[in-house]
Parts: sequence; C-alpha cells; structure tokens
Amino acid sequence: MELPDIGEFGLIERLRTRLPVADRRLVVGSGDDAAVWRAGPYAVATTDTLVAGVHLPAAGADWRSVGWKALAVNVSDIAAMGATPTFALVTFCVPVALEVAALDELADGVRECADAHGVTIAGGDVVSAPVFVVTVALYGEASPGEDGAVRVLRRDRARPGDAIAVTGALGGAGAGARLLTGSASGGGPSRRTETERRLIDRQMRPRPRVDAGAAALEAGAACAIDVSDGLLQDLGHIASASRVGTDVWLDRVPVDDAARAAFPDDATAFALGGGEDYELIVVAPAAVVQSIGDRLACPLAIIGRAVDAAGVVRLLDSDGREVDAASRGWDHLRRR
Amino acid sequence: MELPDIGEFGLIERLRTRLPVADRRLVVGSGDDAAVWRAGPYAVATTDTLVAGVHLPAAGADWRSVGWKALAVNVSDIAAMGATPTFALVTFCVPVALEVAALDELADGVRECADAHGVTIAGGDVVSAPVFVVTVALYGEASPGEDGAVRVLRRDRARPGDAIAVTGALGGAGAGARLLTGSASGGGPSRRTETERRLIDRQMRPRPRVDAGAAALEAGAACAIDVSDGLLQDLGHIASASRVGTDVWLDRVPVDDAARAAFPDDATAFALGGGEDYELIVVAPAAVVQSIGDRLACPLAIIGRAVDAAGVVRLLDSDGREVDAASRGWDHLRRR
Repeated sequence: MELPDIGEFGLIERLRTRLPVADRRLVVGSGDDAAVWRAGPYAVATTDTLVAGVHLPAAGADWRSVGWKALAVNVSDIAAMGATPTFALVTFCVPVALEVAALDELADGVRECADAHGVTIAGGDVVSAPVFVVTVALYGEASPGEDGAVRVLRRDRARPGDAIAVTGALGGAGAGARLLTGSASGGGPSRRTETERRLIDRQMRPRPRVDAGAAALEAGAACAIDVSDGLLQDLGHIASASRVGTDVWLDRVPVDDAARAAFPDDATAFALGGGEDYELIVVAPAAVVQSIGDRLACPLAIIGRAVDAAGVVRLLDSDGREVDAASRGWDHLRRR
Repeated sequence: MELPDIGEFGLIERLRTRLPVADRRLVVGSGDDAAVWRAGPYAVATTDTLVAGVHLPAAGADWRSVGWKALAVNVSDIAAMGATPTFALVTFCVPVALEVAALDELADGVRECADAHGVTIAGGDVVSAPVFVVTVALYGEASPGEDGAVRVLRRDRARPGDAIAVTGALGGAGAGARLLTGSASGGGPSRRTETERRLIDRQMRPRPRVDAGAAALEAGAACAIDVSDGLLQDLGHIASASRVGTDVWLDRVPVDDAARAAFPDDATAFALGGGEDYELIVVAPAAVVQSIGDRLACPLAIIGRAVDAAGVVRLLDSDGREVDAASRGWDHLRRR
C-alpha cells in the first residue's frame, strides 16, 4: 500500500493513532490549527532535520531507527541545555511512492524514543516531496534558580582552568556510519557480526544523555554541548563561544570498544571527528565534574582542560606535545 | 557565490546577522544547542513546510516572498487559535548549488514577515538536500480566562445555529497559483498586469489574520480555522471535528475582485477550493460575529450557518437548493 491509497488526511489520521497522547499538560493536540499546552516558566526549543542520502542511507533504511534518531538528536540538544524535553512537532516530507508500512515504522520509532524520554508528539505536518526529509521541533522546560533566573547549560560558560569531561565512549556512531555507507568490507545486513550491529545501533539509535545534563546542572555546572558534529569541532564551538582554549589529552579520550575492534586504524579518527555519538561534553571545575560523575550510572571521563587561549582547540599527546589532528585526518571526517 | 564557498557555519552566521533578535524574553538565542525564552502560561505551537516543486515554483522563485510565505502560513495557524505568535525556528534544506544571494533573500523575507507580526527567529537548522525545503516551527502564547483555563479558538467548538463568517475575500491565492504554474496565457513576470501581480502577491505573501483571531476571542467566539486547504475542505474539518453540518450560501461567498477579473470562469472555483488565502473562518452566534466585525478593519462576511447534520458540508444557491460543488469542479482544486 502506498501513500496515494490513503491520502493526506488518511495518513495523518494513521500517524495520530500510532502517536497517542497521554500528557495531561496538553490542552489541544494534533488535529487543530496548532497544539496548546500548559508551559513552565522557561521554554527551551530546538530543531534538527535528517535528509535521505545526506544524513540517512539513501535507500534500504531501517525506518523504525530513522524515527528514533529523528527525535533522539533533538532530545540530545535539550539534554545539552540541562533541560527536560516535553512536546515535539514532527514533519515528514515523503515521496509518494513510499510504502505506508514505512511510515508506520517511522511513527513507531518516533514513539519508542518519545516514550523513553517522556516526550509527547503534539502535532506536525506531512507533505509530499521528491526526497525523504524528517524535521523535528522539540520543546522542553528549564527551571529557574532561587534568584528566578533560568538555569541552563550554555556553550559560552567555559572558564580557563575548567576540566573538560565527556560521558560514555566516542567513535561508535562514526564507525556505524562507515558500515552503513558500505565502504567497509563484509557482508550485507543479514551477515552483520554482533560488533557491527552494535556500531550501527550507535549510529541509528543514539541515547541522549538527559540524565547527565540534569546531573551536571544539579552539581553546579554551567557549560555543556552534545557531541553531534565531532568532539574537536564541538569543542571548537565551546572555545569560540566562551573565548577559551580547549586542550584535549589524546590518550584520555574514551574510544568505543566496538569501533576499535572493527576499525583499529580509524577508531581514534571516529572518536575525534566522526560525530553523532550524542554523548555530553561538560566543562566545569574538576570538583564539579567529580560530583556529576558520582550522580551518574554512565562513565564520565576528564579528557582535557580549558585554557586561556581564546578559540584554540589543541590535541596533546601523553608528553604534552601538540598532535596535528588535521594532518592525521582526525578532525575532518564529518559526513555533512 | 554558492554555499560551498562559505560552508555550513559561515552560512549560519550569515543568516544570524540577517535575523537579529530584539525580544527581551529570549534568554538564549541561535548559537547554542537550543533556544531558551520566558514563556507564558500556555504555549501554542505549529509547524508547516514548503517544498520546491510541490508548494513552491520549482525554479525561478521570488526567494524573498518564499521566506515571507514560509513564516506567514505558520502565523496564520497561530492566528486561527486566537493566539499571539512569539518565537520561530526556521529550517532550510538547500541544494548546494543554490546561490548565497538566494539565501539572503529568503532570510530577508522571513524577517519582513517576522517584523510584521512581532515574531523573533530564535533558532533553526541549515542542511544540504537535493531539493529546497523550508520548515518553520512557530510558537505563540495563549491567555487563560478568569477561570484559569486557556482561551483559544478550536475546530471542534461549532454549534448548530452558529453563523459561519469569513474575513476578506477568497480565491486570489488560487488564481495566483494558476498564474505561477504558467497554465494561464499571458507573458512572463516582467509583462504581468497589475491584476496579475496582485494575485501572485495573494499567493506568495499571505497576510495572516492575527487581529481577527484576537478580536474573535475577545468577542466570545470559540471556533475558527484558517483557509489553507480551501473553503469547503476547511469547513469539512470544522464539520467533522464539531459534529455539525455547514451550509454555505454560494452567493454570499466573497470572491476576490482580481481573481474574478483575471479568471471569470474559475474565480468561484478558486474561492471554494483553491485554498491558501489564509483568511479566517469564524463559526459563532450571529451576535458574536457582529461584534467581531465591529472590531475589525477588514470585511467579515456571514456566508452560511452551522446545522444539525454531523460532518456534512453543503453548498446552497439563492433558492436554498443544494449545488453539487464536486460535479462543477469547485471542491477538488487542491494543489497538494
């Protein structure tokens, strides 16, 4: 069954039944001109888009995972503010030849991720397009501190002397992307090893660190960013917004075990420049980082330090000597 | 100059300078993981997407008008709730061959519409894609009544006996679309008559009826929708959500003068089914409609009545006889 068989309004109705609403703050949901909900004192909002052939495999996609990822990358942005995600608007641009079953899978994937993070799909749009595009606008809430001012994690709050820490391990998503683009040797999907499946999962089903963002804020941190573009590039955003330098100790960067096993020569490059791991980078005094780590179930590794050198990102070896990441192909592996 | 010449981050920086922020409620704007603003008690949110070749001319677009329209269609949704638009997230999916000058024009068009409606662009996304797509997520605020419950205009609040009224005139946007798709005779853009330019303006530069939405709420109305899909289809949404029938008196439907002049045979069809006029339909007791009209500078015409016939949309002639809109090609002119 293809989209013309059920039409635009049939499709919207179908998506609505697959994305049920259970949030009592929602006053008007999908089906009116706009959604209406009771808001907290501070709204947080972000939007991210995935395009087939650019951010997603051009064909043969695992649609359920695409649905998960479309929402998850937005949840990660809210997590990086230390905020709580609440309501999402989801827009699908779909080629008319797309099977309705694919849309069902997409909606189910969105819902899985929404359920995992307490997000309600409050509305959206479905339009026909020559290429598949999914855009999510995600809304969340941030809380005021005792002085009434909002408390969030920002890119421009790093201070020289702060420790740079990162949750989990890096490079898995980049390795998964390599597998999906088929440039790796090895068989098709059915012949994937356990390691390969794990890496593809890292790429397609990121687990945003909402808990880590909340813990960081709770512990008194003020600066964070999620790893979307790639560790060095995302640190560059902090360095430039905060007007600090960021020194990264190469041997402290936690590299994903599966990435190392599958791509021993490239795992470090994936960790430094592959991006899309959606781990959380926190920049805060070492004692604060210690306190965040105590609150978390996941690893939190100190990988460097903010220094007084506005905008400069340096990679250092164990002797403190600078390593040229660019010349080794470590910081320009970005896929877009 | 094309996009690869300035890169993703250069482009984002360029757009940010063209979309300056002046709203003191905005705490964190574009340039962090998410935007943060002080919210009212009730949030209103909508999203709409325009795709080149589907909702927009495939080539030779007036990019400034595309920018205006991308935001305006969302403002219209907020207007149809009787709410006030506040902050927008704007996503451009752009082919790499697009001229940077086109992006500049797009941003300027978005800004013109934002300035006209008190909207601040709080963030967004720019990604490469094989086809141009613009998606706007627009937020707004609705106010609580004396009982603390939110006051908005909904599709499901029509009651039998209510008058059906519409602002302005209909059919201009449909006529403009016909001109843009080139199926009309006549010359190219430089040879457009004043009438043709007016119709293209109706299609590409809709003026959302925020004032009318606010006036309707103020006067005590509870039900409204904007004319996006087409008068009969949009009334169908109200009929089905409110479980009423909607009788429309054909000779009362205000048809755009320019549409009538340019397309005497098709103007009525454009008015009934062309859509995209972004006028406001209000369904309320006649005395309430009278009171709304007294508050507005624009025309507000009563064009029919809600009746006890769940889900049925009827078109009646001056003798009260039903007219078959479908057989006359009046209700399936939708362009998507």
